[in-house]
Amino acid sequence: MELTDFKVAIDKYKVIFFDAFGVLKTYNALIPGIEATFAYLKETGKEFYILTNDASRSPEQLVESYHKLGVYDIVPETIVSSGMLAREYLQYKVENGTVAYLGTANSAHYLKTAGLKALPISEVDLDNTDDISALVFMDDEGFDWNNDLNKTLNLLRKKTIPVIVANTDKTYPMGRKSVAIAIGAVAKMIEDIVGKQFMRFGKPDAQMFIFAYQHILNNAGVSRNDILMVGDTLHTDILGGNKFGLDTALVLTGNTRLEEVDLRIRSTGIIPTYVCESAVVK
Amino acid sequence: MELTDFKVAIDKYKVIFFDAFGVLKTYNALIPGIEATFAYLKETGKEFYILTNDASRSPEQLVESYHKLGVYDIVPETIVSSGMLAREYLQYKVENGTVAYLGTANSAHYLKTAGLKALPISEVDLDNTDDISALVFMDDEGFDWNNDLNKTLNLLRKKTIPVIVANTDKTYPMGRKSVAIAIGAVAKMIEDIVGKQFMRFGKPDAQMFIFAYQHILNNAGVSRNDILMVGDTLHTDILGGNKFGLDTALVLTGNTRLEEVDLRIRSTGIIPTYVCESAVVK
Amino acid sequence: MELTDFKVAIDKYKVIFFDAFGVLKTYNALIPGIEATFAYLKETGKEFYILTNDASRSPEQLVESYHKLGVYDIVPETIVSSGMLAREYLQYKVENGTVAYLGTANSAHYLKTAGLKALPISEVDLDNTDDISALVFMDDEGFDWNNDLNKTLNLLRKKTIPVIVANTDKTYPMGRKSVAIAIGAVAKMIEDIVGKQFMRFGKPDAQMFIFAYQHILNNAGVSRNDILMVGDTLHTDILGGNKFGLDTALVLTGNTRLEEVDLRIRSTGIIPTYVCESAVVK
Amino acid sequence: MELTDFKVAIDKYKVIFFDAFGVLKTYNALIPGIEATFAYLKETGKEFYILTNDASRSPEQLVESYHKLGVYDIVPETIVSSGMLAREYLQYKVENGTVAYLGTANSAHYLKTAGLKALPISEVDLDNTDDISALVFMDDEGFDWNNDLNKTLNLLRKKTIPVIVANTDKTYPMGRKSVAIAIGAVAKMIEDIVGKQFMRFGKPDAQMFIFAYQHILNNAGVSRNDILMVGDTLHTDILGGNKFGLDTALVLTGNTRLEEVDLRIRSTGIIPTYVCESAVVK
Repeated sequence: MELTDFKVAIDKYKVIFFDAFGVLKTYNALIPGIEATFAYLKETGKEFYILTNDASRSPEQLVESYHKLGVYDIVPETIVSSGMLAREYLQYKVENGTVAYLGTANSAHYLKTAGLKALPISEVDLDNTDDISALVFMDDEGFDWNNDLNKTLNLLRKKTIPVIVANTDKTYPMGRKSVAIAIGAVAKMIEDIVGKQFMRFGKPDAQMFIFAYQHILNNAGVSRNDILMVGDTLHTDILGGNKFGLDTALVLTGNTRLEEVDLRIRSTGIIPTYVCESAVVK
Repeated sequence: MELTDFKVAIDKYKVIFFDAFGVLKTYNALIPGIEATFAYLKETGKEFYILTNDASRSPEQLVESYHKLGVYDIVPETIVSSGMLAREYLQYKVENGTVAYLGTANSAHYLKTAGLKALPISEVDLDNTDDISALVFMDDEGFDWNNDLNKTLNLLRKKTIPVIVANTDKTYPMGRKSVAIAIGAVAKMIEDIVGKQFMRFGKPDAQMFIFAYQHILNNAGVSRNDILMVGDTLHTDILGGNKFGLDTALVLTGNTRLEEVDLRIRSTGIIPTYVCESAVVK
Repeated sequence: MELTDFKVAIDKYKVIFFDAFGVLKTYNALIPGIEATFAYLKETGKEFYILTNDASRSPEQLVESYHKLGVYDIVPETIVSSGMLAREYLQYKVENGTVAYLGTANSAHYLKTAGLKALPISEVDLDNTDDISALVFMDDEGFDWNNDLNKTLNLLRKKTIPVIVANTDKTYPMGRKSVAIAIGAVAKMIEDIVGKQFMRFGKPDAQMFIFAYQHILNNAGVSRNDILMVGDTLHTDILGGNKFGLDTALVLTGNTRLEEVDLRIRSTGIIPTYVCESAVVK
Repeated sequence: MELTDFKVAIDKYKVIFFDAFGVLKTYNALIPGIEATFAYLKETGKEFYILTNDASRSPEQLVESYHKLGVYDIVPETIVSSGMLAREYLQYKVENGTVAYLGTANSAHYLKTAGLKALPISEVDLDNTDDISALVFMDDEGFDWNNDLNKTLNLLRKKTIPVIVANTDKTYPMGRKSVAIAIGAVAKMIEDIVGKQFMRFGKPDAQMFIFAYQHILNNAGVSRNDILMVGDTLHTDILGGNKFGLDTALVLTGNTRLEEVDLRIRSTGIIPTYVCESAVVK
């Protein structure tokens, strides 16, 4: 595919949806020059949202992490995280009892703001599970993988409760060349073992895009044709955006490299509207 | 699980979503007594919608099939079919060219009302595919399985185009004890062979429920708490309704039998809010 | 990977296992020059066997197809087909009754030489299945895909019998640039629908290699270190050969092309001992 | 299915293959009365072998664990473990370099007796992996799940080497009502993430049965018709035995309970020759 200049691409749209990792930032820094993009969005009055498969931190904490890197245009209202979808599900469907979770204390924020009692899996008593009304996979940190995953497995063998996965990703970047196993992959292992159906929230699922779309709907006059989804991953950002009816731009600063982009599009059949070198406005 | 009287269950909700097969009708007749349910809905002023993984016929034709069985309360506006979602996708994302399809002439209705040129796969010329801009699996009838599936495979090996599956079901009822392979299973076979990612529309995917929900949104004051999804299949109706935050009622007149319902709920982990003998109001 | 001259590769081994399609022949002709390879094998006294996922024809008919192309060094005793494994299974495990099958009359050869009564699926009476003791997927031809696959599905819903797949391949070559769906992919679709476990015979499964190995065992003094498996497909020929402990040579005249060979090896993790341009001895 | 008396079942066979867990022993004790079975086998001169998906301990250590429980009829020569198959693979295919492994020091026995240098994954230096020639998943204990699984993932992203899984099971029993995640499930998670093909050894794979069969072959005159495979799990013991052409007996002292046996056989399509209450001769 031909490369399109990112500025040319976004000029056709009123609203931009961004993936975070690989598009706006790397594991520990901003994508070089991305500040210019935020300035340009402000100047042209384009709205933007960040759609992230991340339930490890609250929107406020995510915003703070951008502030630390020197970007101040991101506010909590512009964040749409898979943790927010999981929280919405819990609010509609799990009214009573205690929610057991795997994740850090930070990730439990989404459970507590849903008005639920949250209990780390390590503190669950397998001989007394009457009060446990749901289980949530939030984050890959904050628990002992060996002991607590075995405990999770035995809880699910014993009790039929809804199981929620608040981040569907398999890996996330950890360094310049290394990745870490994300909670989505860990949840998949447990799902395969118990043979039950978990509820997974995050891109490429349509609910993520609808959630963001509903934020905008308050602003009259925006149709799906006015929105561009920008991401670095064909199977989440581009597939999900496409399926929801949005135009999509694949950027080459993260999971997809220039030399393999044509082969990847051909072999997966997932076709972005544009391919851009990066999300940097030059 | 304890059985709940269907009338008691629906009395708590303003809007009812129904699956069609196994809930309202069998392969060739109504579920006995279901007319009383429609009368009760009218009497109590409850809105209802039919959510069906069916792209073989237009909403108008589906309505006509109920009229023939003596039910006149169903109008095209109450039908939400997976074919409508596929059409919406095509309207947003496939603007030009010719859409190749597998299915009957009736199923091509959804393509033509999207303003697209529709071509049965049998008429595609594999040596001249420049104009083909998408491929849609609509229905299991209307084509030669052996020749046309091989042709479909070779088209997808040759050309990278979006592939849409307008009905995700694996089977549908054909008689009192027999089923037929649905187009969803056929599409899955081709997807496995080519290794590409198809876009599938239908329950349990959230988009189906959102599509129906948006119809209602016009009527102010209805929240997801006011809606009950009624279905006979755990993996589509109940899973999809649950995940979208709706309460759900499993009825035992179709795919799930009384003697296995507890085991099925335990083994799948998909938990309906209610289990009812049928959707018949007594 | 570096290319190895085929003659250099085979000189280290006493016995050669060949895949057929893409190694010795294309859909309608010999790989150009392959006659020299057979002459060299004869001259040097190396034994060879053809391991083929093909149950459509008897070993005698397969040999005849080579004779027609001008190769006379292949005799029935050098053929190891997946159909022979399926027959062996039936001989050990299905002693009585009638075996229903999908395939041509030629493919039924394997059933009849097992001493079994073979009945094409089209002739099965679903109201009287008492005598049906097994079902075998033999070949993609010889039956009506739509009617007979629906019939197969309903037979398996009704009766719990062993199901055998005599060719695990997904596709086979039909022309210079086109392929056809093989019975392995069709069987997989039915297996996914009914949720039962079929028994699949063919590469990369170890049984295929053991079957060939047992032929040779009669000739004392051959260890697995003395055998080279030659194939054009990483996922069947090379994976299966590797796992059985054989050295393997990937040739580039079939499913794997020179320009993608490195990427394919890296992305699948399936590593041949040698990569050779072709199986032609020059 | 009707229950068959175990003594009646085994009286028709010369050789018996036993699964270990759920058939001969539980997590910490013998199946009550199983001593009588060993006495009967001795008395009647029937050979027996134990086929176990266990690579955590050497055959000698496994034998010792039976001795501690008071059974002295089991000798190392009667043990066929998946660890032995993994070792055989390594002997044929990995001649040089260092094999990285996940597991206890005990499980490394299989690597060292193959003449290989074995290095726990925790000691691998990701910046200097030149000497690493293969990776083996041996056992679920002996490593830090979080750190060492992330390290494993990054090793496999960096280097294309054969990956061997020496135990394909998903879980193993830990107590009267609880299970633990086995290394097979952990390996599957990593395989799904990296998208590469691992080599898995253990039931139901044919190689396990062939390995045992070859032991017996030295004793002339035993055909597959003379062997009975006894196990408690349809998907490993019974499926694998069936596919290899053996008669099979399902016992109800482990993974399969009496009240669900008919449903399980019907829903999986895996059909044992006999169903017996236990492997105890009365």
